[in-house]
Amino acid sequence: MPNTTRNGRSSIQLTPMEVPKASDVLANELRERILSGDYVEGTPLPPERELVVQTKMSRTTVREALRILEVQGLVRIKAGRAGGAFVQRPGEQSMADTVALLIRGRQIRLAALLETREAIEPFCAQLAARHRTDEDLARLDAANEDIAGAGDKLDDFLQANIDWHVAVASASHNELLSGLMISLSRAIYAATENEGFIDDKVREITVKAHRSVTRAIREKDAEAAVRRMSRHVHSYAESIKDFEDRTDIPLDE
Amino acid sequence: MPNTTRNGRSSIQLTPMEVPKASDVLANELRERILSGDYVEGTPLPPERELVVQTKMSRTTVREALRILEVQGLVRIKAGRAGGAFVQRPGEQSMADTVALLIRGRQIRLAALLETREAIEPFCAQLAARHRTDEDLARLDAANEDIAGAGDKLDDFLQANIDWHVAVASASHNELLSGLMISLSRAIYAATENEGFIDDKVREITVKAHRSVTRAIREKDAEAAVRRMSRHVHSYAESIKDFEDRTDIPLDE
Repeated sequence: MPNTTRNGRSSIQLTPMEVPKASDVLANELRERILSGDYVEGTPLPPERELVVQTKMSRTTVREALRILEVQGLVRIKAGRAGGAFVQRPGEQSMADTVALLIRGRQIRLAALLETREAIEPFCAQLAARHRTDEDLARLDAANEDIAGAGDKLDDFLQANIDWHVAVASASHNELLSGLMISLSRAIYAATENEGFIDDKVREITVKAHRSVTRAIREKDAEAAVRRMSRHVHSYAESIKDFEDRTDIPLDE
Repeated sequence: MPNTTRNGRSSIQLTPMEVPKASDVLANELRERILSGDYVEGTPLPPERELVVQTKMSRTTVREALRILEVQGLVRIKAGRAGGAFVQRPGEQSMADTVALLIRGRQIRLAALLETREAIEPFCAQLAARHRTDEDLARLDAANEDIAGAGDKLDDFLQANIDWHVAVASASHNELLSGLMISLSRAIYAATENEGFIDDKVREITVKAHRSVTRAIREKDAEAAVRRMSRHVHSYAESIKDFEDRTDIPLDE
């Protein structure tokens, strides 16, 4: 019921309101058009001055809207004469960036990252065994060769290791799972990039495990793929736990 | 080797360079401080005019930097007299937003969402059985009561359904997994919000399945929790597939 003032007129009660920002309104509109597929990947958006004319918004607002879309990975802004804002579909990169922010910002424990990988990766291997193409197999084989040839070089070992895990995820042909695995792999390897941990024994076990999972994927043996990958990621997690215990780095909060 | 011009002086060769934008430089600096924990959650950042003085950057640049952090979920910008940019830790919300963008932007198939859930959720149930607190159990029980009491109301049913799945994920006490599950649940229920699919039989089976998984979590029976959840999400995925087949909506691309 409306309140009534002394002279009998109703005084309409208002509460604080959220006023949408102009740049959000424009960013939302452009985002919808990009996500709905109106603009194909690579299409240039109209230039800033054109958007100013079309929307009657200020140049600052237009620029802010484009920056918002850039941060969300929906446009790529190129400077210079042939520059402008070019439509791009959100991809694994934006996923990886967000996961990285979440991990750092909430100080997610390494144990939680390893657990998440234990959930996702055996399933990826299972799907890979079902859906892998010859191209997928070639990528897995290449990563296996690289890891065997890395010798003592830690960086080469870690890179080939990530390549293999990412190749398994891609072979699942599930973009969401592979996006997740790429984000996770990066975060885990950043956290375990440690000369002390990656010793000869860890290398040897890793090479063997990757080969046996690859074999299951090649033979389309989904059951073996999931079992072997499960064992591999679990034993990796355990050996990291052992290492952290030995070196007295607390793993849990 | 440097090129040499006709008069003998070397002409240094340059290639196109990426010049970092001022707003990115400032956003990166502030982001680092937020993520490293220098600023506690809820801390107000210095006001815009103060940042302009401190950084000698333009007001537009400062504002753009703050908007970038807002889009990344690292500050909350409040308007008005007591307003400003307040630090917040990146959370499940920013994760959910990114996953939603990825799903829409890459037109991820419903089948891929369901597969991803099949990978993650049984593992969540297993961890929940190990780590659940009394509070977690209370949340699960409340969601079970709501879903049983939803009657014919589809919205109530779907909400209670999400609540239960989110409660299982939270009980895993792994923030990354629960962030993922929250994102996924929303996307899946948005895609399956369909009177035709959610019939009495689906409701009845769901109520039963949720109760039996809850029981395993209560009894700390990790093995039963993973098995029952696995069966539940798999049969849900299958029944959606059947439904889509019946109604001739193509599930695959």
